[in-house]
Amino acid sequence: MRKTPAQLPAASARHNLSHGELVLIQRIRERVARQPFGRRRDQVSLGIGDDCALLRPRRGEEVAVTTDLSIDGRHFRLGWHPPEAIGHRTLARGLSDLAAMGARPMGAFLSLGLPRELSRPGKKNGRSFWLDRFFDGLLHLADAHSTVLAGGDLAESPIAVADIVLVGAVPRGRALLRSGARAGDQLYVTGALGAAAAALARLAEWVASRKKLAHQIPTTGAAEMTAHLYPQPRVQQGLWLQRHKGATAAIDISDGLSTDLAHLCEESGVAAEIDADLLPVHAGANLEQAMHGGEDYELLFTARENARIPKAVAGVAVTRIGRMVQGRSGQPQIALISGRNRQPVMPRGWQHFL
Amino acid sequence: MRKTPAQLPAASARHNLSHGELVLIQRIRERVARQPFGRRRDQVSLGIGDDCALLRPRRGEEVAVTTDLSIDGRHFRLGWHPPEAIGHRTLARGLSDLAAMGARPMGAFLSLGLPRELSRPGKKNGRSFWLDRFFDGLLHLADAHSTVLAGGDLAESPIAVADIVLVGAVPRGRALLRSGARAGDQLYVTGALGAAAAALARLAEWVASRKKLAHQIPTTGAAEMTAHLYPQPRVQQGLWLQRHKGATAAIDISDGLSTDLAHLCEESGVAAEIDADLLPVHAGANLEQAMHGGEDYELLFTARENARIPKAVAGVAVTRIGRMVQGRSGQPQIALISGRNRQPVMPRGWQHFL
Repeated sequence: MRKTPAQLPAASARHNLSHGELVLIQRIRERVARQPFGRRRDQVSLGIGDDCALLRPRRGEEVAVTTDLSIDGRHFRLGWHPPEAIGHRTLARGLSDLAAMGARPMGAFLSLGLPRELSRPGKKNGRSFWLDRFFDGLLHLADAHSTVLAGGDLAESPIAVADIVLVGAVPRGRALLRSGARAGDQLYVTGALGAAAAALARLAEWVASRKKLAHQIPTTGAAEMTAHLYPQPRVQQGLWLQRHKGATAAIDISDGLSTDLAHLCEESGVAAEIDADLLPVHAGANLEQAMHGGEDYELLFTARENARIPKAVAGVAVTRIGRMVQGRSGQPQIALISGRNRQPVMPRGWQHFL
Repeated sequence: MRKTPAQLPAASARHNLSHGELVLIQRIRERVARQPFGRRRDQVSLGIGDDCALLRPRRGEEVAVTTDLSIDGRHFRLGWHPPEAIGHRTLARGLSDLAAMGARPMGAFLSLGLPRELSRPGKKNGRSFWLDRFFDGLLHLADAHSTVLAGGDLAESPIAVADIVLVGAVPRGRALLRSGARAGDQLYVTGALGAAAAALARLAEWVASRKKLAHQIPTTGAAEMTAHLYPQPRVQQGLWLQRHKGATAAIDISDGLSTDLAHLCEESGVAAEIDADLLPVHAGANLEQAMHGGEDYELLFTARENARIPKAVAGVAVTRIGRMVQGRSGQPQIALISGRNRQPVMPRGWQHFL
């Protein structure tokens, strides 16, 4: 969508756009044009088609930016995941980062590298092609969160890669940071935990048992599977916290509760206690999955002891799960409390490659 | 640098960070911290380390955003290009898009997918490793344009991919667009054209003749080679045009003069005539390379006939190369004029994959 510069001559001969490719670009632009764009001109004043897009934060706002790289075989699998789910999950990762800052989404940018066979427009066996279905999933979620697809880049690639950029806005000095938690604060989480990990385990078993790859998904455990394939970023909940000054610190649970809570503890210089009995473990998941499973995309946040935090925000439960305490050097930052039993917790969620 | 979410279990076992990986993250953060950051707190109020970075445009500014995806084998070659040049070129692509809008750079975001062997910190045969050298090139250029590396994402990948995001700021309604040229406007270009294409041709010959891949570059044609390996985005020149209201339309020449001029003509609804005798062809390049070679990263812009455009801006020549004329449907948009000879020009620069 943005310009793509010179390819190297030995890598690929110069070529003019084929008819199919022109159709594809036009198709993407038309789909984006159908986004309910008009009422958002105040946020994206120039979309796809120039050297840059132009976004308009309101007076007194700062701009929140996040990028998330998804690679076939690491963050998704072409053989496991329906294209709609890959599109949805790609965008959800970025929206969840905005949610964790309490920022309102303005625009998204997508850099997409695809093997040639995935980029052909048209239909096959009566089903739309991969890229159409990918955009179905991505734009459906974008519309739900008033996010304009404002630009990006497209290139041929030996493997499928998708880098999503989210740009949001938040009043100056009001963003929810990881670093604001203090000893004595209460610890909260939105929604239920572990569903995505439970579904992923079931999906892996299912693929292994079939000994084949297919774009069909097991129908048992539908609620967890939906949580894995179509996770809902907690944008409204993050905005509520920011607007009501409800939270002292926040992070989204993309790498697993234990790992993301450890990040929050480290940035804030405090430790945490989780009450095992309070943890909202998803009905289809176990404690292990709730503590360490990644990709729940719920919000984890802290609030002053006397803060009034509702039981639900915009239809999503908010649960107190523990408290922040003084950290002691050499001690684990996180403890799981169950009756009189106090168990140290090491971060065992997903870790960065680098 | 931003969080990376769950990898799929079958793709890679969960793992804790190795000592080497922790050293690497720390190393990148320390290098970015050494960027002259202090005096730019007004533009990046929160850098690497939270769910999002926070940027602060000034009052009355809108925000310009561009993303550019670079993939090994298409936009660079690990076997041909020194890591410093790959880092430099990655950032130059994005800075050049900001330049073409007349925007001042605020922050850059880098999503980097790398094969494991390229990400190991340390030294080998007395040389720094790949990733260190990549950041040398990227951050040196970033510093030259007061651009903070404010965030990004890192992941393991079977192939090397780098998506660069540039965020800039421009006074509302003052961005240089592709769509503002009118018949009667004069056509200008910065710098000289064709050097990058000439160097690329020489590099390809050189690699072919050696029958081997090496991180050594031919020393003949040094000026062109520098233009190819370390292209200078015309940020200062774009800012000058925006601040002096000098241009009616602008685009950067990343895909080649013929292709990018065609984009400008199409968005503006006009045609163009180029005077062959006026074209600033680089001393080491030919007319073909100047007309169609990509990656020059010069600015192409139009100005009213009576506009005062200096011969040089910030040390870079500015040359009038032709004029905009009424477009006629069914006629080529671009003509090359040489004496009495008038030759239609088809866009033959690099084309998008999609």
